[in-house]
Amino acid sequence: MSKTRVIIWGLGAMGGGMAKFLLDREGIEIVGAIKHRPVEGDPDLGKVLGLGKKLGVKVSNDVNKVLKTKADIVLHSTSSFTKDVFPELAKIMNSKKNVITIAEEMAYPQANEPALSKKIDALAKKNKVSVLGTGINPGFVLDTLIIALTGICANVKKIKAMRINDLSPFGPTVMRTQGVGTTVKEFYQGLKNGSIVGHIGFLESINMIADAIGWDLTEVKQTREPIITKVYRRTPHVEVQPGMVAGCKHIGYGMRGKEVLITLEHPQQICPGLEKIETGDYIKIEGTPNVNLSIKPEIPGGIGTMAIAINMIPAVIKASPGLKTMSDLPVPSVILKDINKLKRYK
Amino acid sequence: MSKTRVIIWGLGAMGGGMAKFLLDREGIEIVGAIKHRPVEGDPDLGKVLGLGKKLGVKVSNDVNKVLKTKADIVLHSTSSFTKDVFPELAKIMNSKKNVITIAEEMAYPQANEPALSKKIDALAKKNKVSVLGTGINPGFVLDTLIIALTGICANVKKIKAMRINDLSPFGPTVMRTQGVGTTVKEFYQGLKNGSIVGHIGFLESINMIADAIGWDLTEVKQTREPIITKVYRRTPHVEVQPGMVAGCKHIGYGMRGKEVLITLEHPQQICPGLEKIETGDYIKIEGTPNVNLSIKPEIPGGIGTMAIAINMIPAVIKASPGLKTMSDLPVPSVILKDINKLKRYK
Repeated sequence: MSKTRVIIWGLGAMGGGMAKFLLDREGIEIVGAIKHRPVEGDPDLGKVLGLGKKLGVKVSNDVNKVLKTKADIVLHSTSSFTKDVFPELAKIMNSKKNVITIAEEMAYPQANEPALSKKIDALAKKNKVSVLGTGINPGFVLDTLIIALTGICANVKKIKAMRINDLSPFGPTVMRTQGVGTTVKEFYQGLKNGSIVGHIGFLESINMIADAIGWDLTEVKQTREPIITKVYRRTPHVEVQPGMVAGCKHIGYGMRGKEVLITLEHPQQICPGLEKIETGDYIKIEGTPNVNLSIKPEIPGGIGTMAIAINMIPAVIKASPGLKTMSDLPVPSVILKDINKLKRYK
Repeated sequence: MSKTRVIIWGLGAMGGGMAKFLLDREGIEIVGAIKHRPVEGDPDLGKVLGLGKKLGVKVSNDVNKVLKTKADIVLHSTSSFTKDVFPELAKIMNSKKNVITIAEEMAYPQANEPALSKKIDALAKKNKVSVLGTGINPGFVLDTLIIALTGICANVKKIKAMRINDLSPFGPTVMRTQGVGTTVKEFYQGLKNGSIVGHIGFLESINMIADAIGWDLTEVKQTREPIITKVYRRTPHVEVQPGMVAGCKHIGYGMRGKEVLITLEHPQQICPGLEKIETGDYIKIEGTPNVNLSIKPEIPGGIGTMAIAINMIPAVIKASPGLKTMSDLPVPSVILKDINKLKRYK
């Protein structure tokens, strides 16, 4: 059996991390790498990843050239929004390759970009390839895992889930988009001018859940509030004095009329432990039966996103052509041997 | 769109309960019911279920007659072992109907009955139908849920999970097969003569996990020990004095050589709370990253099994022909509207 050939598009923290994880996987071969920012003289991927050894794969920013390489799938990580990644996904599909993207909106593009979703689905079918958006959240914790848990319920009345995480390991971009280190006034200004965005994915997760289980929502509401710290908090990138903003408490509500059916909370902040806030993923289903799940600490976002993206490779390759979501495909799993030797993808 | 037509085979606690849940489901119609034990004069299903109203469906023990009814799927709950249910499943498949069974071994019949599994798969393909074994455990808590959680791992080294439940609601059969109320000596005799069996499903769950993620196990070991109570415990069906057996601690180990890769523990007893034992489902994955999940209290076994069986109906109807496992099909979910109107099964 030949190896599964992968092209990496995007070599930031996520794309680069995925490439490194793939090097350990049996039966997988990285056959191309696309970097967004200009690179000089197509350096070796090993050098770009800082491995101190050559991998025999050039990193290029000439998309069309790299996409001429024969490959089974492209792992795509360039930006968050469907409208921004659509032209890139189209190029991949037209080169007859399957694609997994970690663009947040692509976890369920039907939610915010129904017209583009139809285009992606049509283009995928035309080229006989499959397209999946995934990640830890959206993509798993606040949607796929919830959907799977409702599977043991005879009825469900309400869903509440919460992901409390720690932003401390992240860099300046995340600090800025979550408003960490701002005053309360600056926080609200940032929300208004779009520089502070909170979490991207509530619209996607809430609609994915509702569509999977069969709730007809009338609206998805979202609120964003500053998490004002009572204590001094700091990371290598930011310092927050008491009374200032340590993060963004973002909540999404799936409504049917005036009834709140789904509540997803995602307070993201630095150093939550300093105010004795325990990080974790929490899911409560009110139904027959009730379900009360905790994952402590929370599943780490970075590794989780990289892992689930690479773990979905065989499912996406084997899927029927079209735009897929995590709720269309078999349950994810880590893959510890050559995909071609795995029983469930035979 | 026409309704999804279901035949219920087996009207014990599980089959009868599934029938009742189905009555609340939009777009589902029960078109036939088979009872194992002799029934007099084909009574109405409503009467057999104790509903005090007629449903217009006769309950019969003439299998061949009922299987002549047009239907999309049969929900099957008669016994636990693949070899016992095989002739029944064959009849269903030969009548061109899909089937979901809660026979424990059928959750992964590849484990204990590889030859019969191949026969089932061939017969399903010949008749262009799909066959799924499911339930809460095996079927979800100690296999599908674990598999799904490994999906966010870049690597997994060890898996340990535990399902601590309370047998108090169950009747005399369960008490007997778990050894509740025996002396320690009687317990070991019961294990020896096969009257005490503990949990049925470790071989299935452990192999399902290993095959899904790609571990080549060399052996599955199992141990069964009496849970000796320190305090007096009782239920309407059994009394247990201190020093006697309140249940069976059954553990399954998935081995690769001398290495234990998977440990599944399932201590089943009455009134665990009397010794301050908290019931729950617990999963610990040692990997990159570690995952530490709890569901408290445990997902109840009876409702959970009935619910997941009926919730898998659309996935099984839409699946390609053959023998399927929970790791082959899309993630389960509760289904709160007509299957034909659900986006993900369109």
